[in-house]
Amino acid sequence: MKPEAVTALGLVAATLTTVSFLPQVLRTVRTRDTRSISVGMYAAFVTGVGLWLIYGLLMQDVPIVVANAITFVLSGIVFLLKLRYG
Amino acid sequence: MKPEAVTALGLVAATLTTVSFLPQVLRTVRTRDTRSISVGMYAAFVTGVGLWLIYGLLMQDVPIVVANAITFVLSGIVFLLKLRYG
Repeated sequence: MKPEAVTALGLVAATLTTVSFLPQVLRTVRTRDTRSISVGMYAAFVTGVGLWLIYGLLMQDVPIVVANAITFVLSGIVFLLKLRYG
Repeated sequence: MKPEAVTALGLVAATLTTVSFLPQVLRTVRTRDTRSISVGMYAAFVTGVGLWLIYGLLMQDVPIVVANAITFVLSGIVFLLKLRYG
């Protein structure tokens, strides 16, 4: 069995990497400036997170599904705004 | 035992979310333009990935260590360039 501290560490890590996209979404919506953002990065990242989501569903792993569903939406918004504003 | 196809799916997902930061690093190094990148996003993301790295080491989980070590370096470079160029 995993020590509780290690589980807690994983939850904090998952929360940080998930909510980290929120400040980018807020900044991009406010400034409509996406010039220095790489479209290649977000295309690959959103696809990868989408695959993690499918992986989590197949494994019936709730933390993987929840974390990647949120990240998929947030990073997906940045990606769409990049496509829109160039 | 996990079906091989699901394991392969996880590896592709991990690879995509890891290498996705490379185009952002290349763009930022080339353009020195970080204006539309959120410093808050990268501060939280790099910290989160760092915690995943520690988590992987504690769990002795090689894929988690390898994926997050690469992501830590790449996203860390973008973060430092953002601090440098503002």
